Amino acid sequence: MNQNYIKPDNWSIIEEGFDKESVKSSESLFSIGNGAMGQRANFEETYSGETFQGSYIAGIYYPDKTKVGWWKNGYPEYFAKVLNAPNWIGIDIIINGENLDLNQCTEIKNYRRELNMKEGWYNRSFEASMKNGTQVAVNVRRFLSLDLDEVGLINYEITPLNKDAKIVYKPYIDAGVTNEDANWDEKFWEPLEVKRTGNEAFVTAQTYKTHFKVTTFMHNSVFSNGKNLNLSPINSETTTEKITVSYDVIVAKGEKSSIQKIGGYTVSLNHENTLLGAENAIKQALTIGFGQLLENQIEAWAKIWEMSDITIDGDVKAQQGIRFNIFQLNQTYLGKDSRLNIGPKGFTGEKYGGSTYWDTEAYCIPFYMATKDQQVARNLLTYRYNQLDKAIENAQKNLCFTNGAALYPMVTMNGEECHNEWEITHEEIHRNGAIAFAIFNYNRFTGDYSYIPEKGLEVLIGIARFWHQRANFSKDKNQFVILGVTGPNEYENNINNNFYTNFIAKWCIDYTYEQIQKVALEYPLDHKRIVEKVNLSVVELKEWKKVSGNMYFPKSDELGIYLQQDGFLDKDLVLVKDLDKSQRPINQKWSWDRVLRSPYIKQADVLQCFYFFEEHFTKEELQRNFEFYEAFTVHESSLSPCVHSIQAAKLDKMDMAYTFYLRTSRLDLDDYNKEVEEGCHITSMAGTWMSIVEGFGGMRVKNDALHFSPKIPKEWKGYSFKINFRNQIVTISVTHNDIQFSLEGNKGITVYVNQKAVLVEPNSLVVV
Amino acid sequence: MNQNYIKPDNWSIIEEGFDKESVKSSESLFSIGNGAMGQRANFEETYSGETFQGSYIAGIYYPDKTKVGWWKNGYPEYFAKVLNAPNWIGIDIIINGENLDLNQCTEIKNYRRELNMKEGWYNRSFEASMKNGTQVAVNVRRFLSLDLDEVGLINYEITPLNKDAKIVYKPYIDAGVTNEDANWDEKFWEPLEVKRTGNEAFVTAQTYKTHFKVTTFMHNSVFSNGKNLNLSPINSETTTEKITVSYDVIVAKGEKSSIQKIGGYTVSLNHENTLLGAENAIKQALTIGFGQLLENQIEAWAKIWEMSDITIDGDVKAQQGIRFNIFQLNQTYLGKDSRLNIGPKGFTGEKYGGSTYWDTEAYCIPFYMATKDQQVARNLLTYRYNQLDKAIENAQKNLCFTNGAALYPMVTMNGEECHNEWEITHEEIHRNGAIAFAIFNYNRFTGDYSYIPEKGLEVLIGIARFWHQRANFSKDKNQFVILGVTGPNEYENNINNNFYTNFIAKWCIDYTYEQIQKVALEYPLDHKRIVEKVNLSVVELKEWKKVSGNMYFPKSDELGIYLQQDGFLDKDLVLVKDLDKSQRPINQKWSWDRVLRSPYIKQADVLQCFYFFEEHFTKEELQRNFEFYEAFTVHESSLSPCVHSIQAAKLDKMDMAYTFYLRTSRLDLDDYNKEVEEGCHITSMAGTWMSIVEGFGGMRVKNDALHFSPKIPKEWKGYSFKINFRNQIVTISVTHNDIQFSLEGNKGITVYVNQKAVLVEPNSLVVV
Repeated sequence: MNQNYIKPDNWSIIEEGFDKESVKSSESLFSIGNGAMGQRANFEETYSGETFQGSYIAGIYYPDKTKVGWWKNGYPEYFAKVLNAPNWIGIDIIINGENLDLNQCTEIKNYRRELNMKEGWYNRSFEASMKNGTQVAVNVRRFLSLDLDEVGLINYEITPLNKDAKIVYKPYIDAGVTNEDANWDEKFWEPLEVKRTGNEAFVTAQTYKTHFKVTTFMHNSVFSNGKNLNLSPINSETTTEKITVSYDVIVAKGEKSSIQKIGGYTVSLNHENTLLGAENAIKQALTIGFGQLLENQIEAWAKIWEMSDITIDGDVKAQQGIRFNIFQLNQTYLGKDSRLNIGPKGFTGEKYGGSTYWDTEAYCIPFYMATKDQQVARNLLTYRYNQLDKAIENAQKNLCFTNGAALYPMVTMNGEECHNEWEITHEEIHRNGAIAFAIFNYNRFTGDYSYIPEKGLEVLIGIARFWHQRANFSKDKNQFVILGVTGPNEYENNINNNFYTNFIAKWCIDYTYEQIQKVALEYPLDHKRIVEKVNLSVVELKEWKKVSGNMYFPKSDELGIYLQQDGFLDKDLVLVKDLDKSQRPINQKWSWDRVLRSPYIKQADVLQCFYFFEEHFTKEELQRNFEFYEAFTVHESSLSPCVHSIQAAKLDKMDMAYTFYLRTSRLDLDDYNKEVEEGCHITSMAGTWMSIVEGFGGMRVKNDALHFSPKIPKEWKGYSFKINFRNQIVTISVTHNDIQFSLEGNKGITVYVNQKAVLVEPNSLVVV
Repeated sequence: MNQNYIKPDNWSIIEEGFDKESVKSSESLFSIGNGAMGQRANFEETYSGETFQGSYIAGIYYPDKTKVGWWKNGYPEYFAKVLNAPNWIGIDIIINGENLDLNQCTEIKNYRRELNMKEGWYNRSFEASMKNGTQVAVNVRRFLSLDLDEVGLINYEITPLNKDAKIVYKPYIDAGVTNEDANWDEKFWEPLEVKRTGNEAFVTAQTYKTHFKVTTFMHNSVFSNGKNLNLSPINSETTTEKITVSYDVIVAKGEKSSIQKIGGYTVSLNHENTLLGAENAIKQALTIGFGQLLENQIEAWAKIWEMSDITIDGDVKAQQGIRFNIFQLNQTYLGKDSRLNIGPKGFTGEKYGGSTYWDTEAYCIPFYMATKDQQVARNLLTYRYNQLDKAIENAQKNLCFTNGAALYPMVTMNGEECHNEWEITHEEIHRNGAIAFAIFNYNRFTGDYSYIPEKGLEVLIGIARFWHQRANFSKDKNQFVILGVTGPNEYENNINNNFYTNFIAKWCIDYTYEQIQKVALEYPLDHKRIVEKVNLSVVELKEWKKVSGNMYFPKSDELGIYLQQDGFLDKDLVLVKDLDKSQRPINQKWSWDRVLRSPYIKQADVLQCFYFFEEHFTKEELQRNFEFYEAFTVHESSLSPCVHSIQAAKLDKMDMAYTFYLRTSRLDLDDYNKEVEEGCHITSMAGTWMSIVEGFGGMRVKNDALHFSPKIPKEWKGYSFKINFRNQIVTISVTHNDIQFSLEGNKGITVYVNQKAVLVEPNSLVVV
């Protein structure tokens, strides 16, 4: 596998030169998506080399029977897997009787991939010499329409270079696909119906068990030198799950022949009759036309960039990195549909299954809040509200909690827990805290309180009830403790009194308590409705406060730090810098017990608490804790460097902040962890955005106002970003000399720079 | 499934009346074995109802590819499974054209199973009315010869009761068998060769991967009213893995027809040519004859009982219980072969795979030491010595230890670790301590020191090196700690400073250190050889002593107890007696996290330390710790009640001791845990023996002498047992009135009763 081969470019991801060792990595990096569907950058034509095939449809999953070595009571029966969806991109190409296959060609020149992030399309071009002596130039453009989000388009163009060619185009759609990570090698798709009419074809299949019905469709047109030949297929092959049609053309040397394939999916989540939906989708796409759809695509992406772009001046790799992150986040989730969420691999791979982790609340919501309409973040919150009953059932059924206590799942699609490691599934319960925190954070950022009486308060009550029951009173300590948890640092399992967990548990109870009081005063009808629905009593609230008011927090007075957990100082405290490099990454080099008893930290844990709740701590406390824990942090999670980058920036450790920033922003592009071929780390990409906005920009919301304390790495000339703050769009540009603000909107806004108020008027530049 | 249906009897296990619900449980309870092979009490004839088929050959295993949900670095690739061996017992019976099948008969009367433990045979008899109207009486006797341990014998006798019958006997041997717990439904046996000559047949197969070659054989003779008809088969069916032959007889109403089947296995562990071996085995068996082999069997069991029987007067259920335990232990392991060990299910089921757990050292060795020649226990120790290199490799390869540190596997067949839960495989390291303790215990009991310089010292050094590296210095405590372990109480995982583990770690280092000094003085040549071989230096020994001399032990001064682990007193300390019964067994009712953070104890942990090392503690300490921990112990391990019984007896809590005794001795017979259909709990049966000998009898070895402090439960009139102490056989009988000793041998022995010396002379009775 190759690392670090992507060409630096401000706006595009570019690969040059064909190398089989890069194919799977590039399939991930050049993935495209439009929020509703997406796919890896698999070749359209046959490829007999190493490849990882993947197309994905948002919200469509398969409950794969749990596989474990030793069953533990309370494990879920299924793991909801991201499904490899039917293939609609395939086009076999036969040239002068030989199948075009880059793994078989005698020479490949000028091979180039480009993912144009500015305009939202992907292009692949090359010149190939085939075994039969034919030389061809090929250029393929593909995009998934933001405009018609059930539709993708391919223009596959071939130019014979050294002789005339008989070309057979064999576009197909195929539901006979499998998942690489299927637990039991089961088939996930049950074929229902195939239909072909002229240049159109449809394969309808449904997922086993979940019965999501999907019609995969295609429509093909063959062109010569840009002119539609209006060909009909000369042949077609149909099985129960696959349709292939064939078009024959004779192409003179130097002429451009092409096939335009329109394809995609219609799904039963959105259509009563998916076949009819598919026919309409083709009709719409043909009406608008390939060229116009591409224009629309460019325009739609321009709108996205207008709001969410971050510019970095003087550091093209950093610039490319941040744009790649922003681009992927927008490909994965556009926030239109509260049934959807942000999968950890987006549409770039299968790994980790599920769609929803605590990553959404802890890392992604800030990005979507600041770069989209507030409805997008509200949809993400509503997703959890809609799954509250299942979270209550989860706490009840699997974990013996009572009284409406809710434990949100570690990994989920439909609200049911999928994961099956006791130390994670049952013990990494801090996730519940992040879900409550996101409600607070949403209100703090958007000022929209209405979500809380409408929906959020019920979620908060379920969560507060969980923490109340999960803590127990230690007679020995005369305080409440939380035993047997896994914190954000998953290199510790089944520990007692994880500082972060205890802190967020207390915070959740207190915050919920406050919101109940506030809703009682300001939304009495909602209060009445909710109190009745969840059967909440004053006695119960008093019991909550006993726990939150007397929570135990492990700390070391000598070191002036909070302890990640009880007993942390018993460890053999060798610093990461003193650890032999050959031992890293420790999770690949060491057995799990060794990882666990080591002091090494996978990702921010105590420091995650300082990140979420910084106003609860002094800067001196941050400094002591940061210096202590950073020295033990190995950052073997993609979610780790961003939090450290933000805190390093706050502590004026700018070199460190910059190093962490680069690591997070180019994690996939440079393939630091040698695993990008499995897919990209989508959710951590929001952390990259935070590193700039909250780290270097120092953006915070306090008392309904935007605050900044901008800093700039010495490696950069300048950077800028935009924030949609309550429908006012503030642009901030930072250089080594000054800080500039501008504003789109009608009325002025007061922002704070290093705690000084700055009035920014619409359409005028303020220089600080 | 039925519980508690076995008829009380002093010498036999008896079931009366046919009940489909009992078939699988009885298949376990009526299992027979001869140390070399064994099998569940499956019916010979067809049975279409629920059954769990199992035949097993000692030492023959299959490395089943590991199945886990989430792979962790350091997991073993294979789990060595006890293999379901080819079936040699099968005899299909066709009577007047109908297949005899107890699941299809219209009526079954006088159904009776008997496992005669005194004589070592199993009998099944019944009268069945078949659908075709034929009524037959059937009597089947089966035993596995102790004399010829590759041979088993069946006499299957049929008497038509209401009409003449045409009977077709179809005995078969079949290698086409599977394991119920195969991870991937793979076939484990590869058929190699089939051969039939006259009344003999042979199927040779080998295990995949491990290539153990096994010839399964049979020889059949058909009798009428006890007279050999010298029939030849009229027919045979042969596949690549199965041979069936048919014998036809016409049997008049009231006549007794029978088939005698000789069968069994010859294995490549013992034969170069297994087929030749099988032919010889048949020849030998025919030469001796069924009747004489049964006589020999009775005699061989008489010899075993002569040495190992325990009598209990006035409590037939207790008597039956202890004999069942002793019988099963002798069926499982006879100590002839140091390649073998004591599987947790013996020859009664597949569960738990492997053959060797710490149970061998902690629970079984005392039984074998006291009831067999010392060579048997020495063979068990030698088994570990022979696997030392693999234990070193295990510590090195999987766990990054260096310098010859040895970690013996949690579960093994050939010395390689099989288990794959990090919290057990990598953290339940106390097993290493039990292996060292067994060496000490062997020497203490037998007085045979020679094992240590010859073999044991190398094992001890590997283990001491492990503990030395596994502990780390806590600056915070200024002592050595052992982090991240699972103690004997497996209801705690990844805990810090398990008292038992820390104690045995220190003890191992100190004991090894002492043995090195002793061997240096008394066996200088061995010392030189070993020191050179393992490259041991004085500097290293000093480092060891730093750890053992400054080990941390968690305790509560307030309660005057040792703490099971750091933080134990933070738990919600609800006593077992106050726990709602509906919540038990907790491991079936609660999710794992709830089990872990509860105070409930699966099996003796701190109390295991008091059991192994009682001379290190005062009786008052035992009392405080016993009373504290017993109140939290749920005894959900078969290994738990015996240790508590012994300690309760010591503390004069005789009612408690008796309750625990009954629980351990009739665990399987009364099926307390509703799981006997999976097989019997063989290794815990040695604990039952300890409950009487060490618990009620108070037997200890101190300063090369036997000590007793006998007590007797009020429910009993008396009890007696024998101890082979250094080739002198002491019998002790206890009643409420007196204690009697007698001795077989040539010279007298001084034993101590409640610390008073008593001289026992050969062949005379001493009453105390």
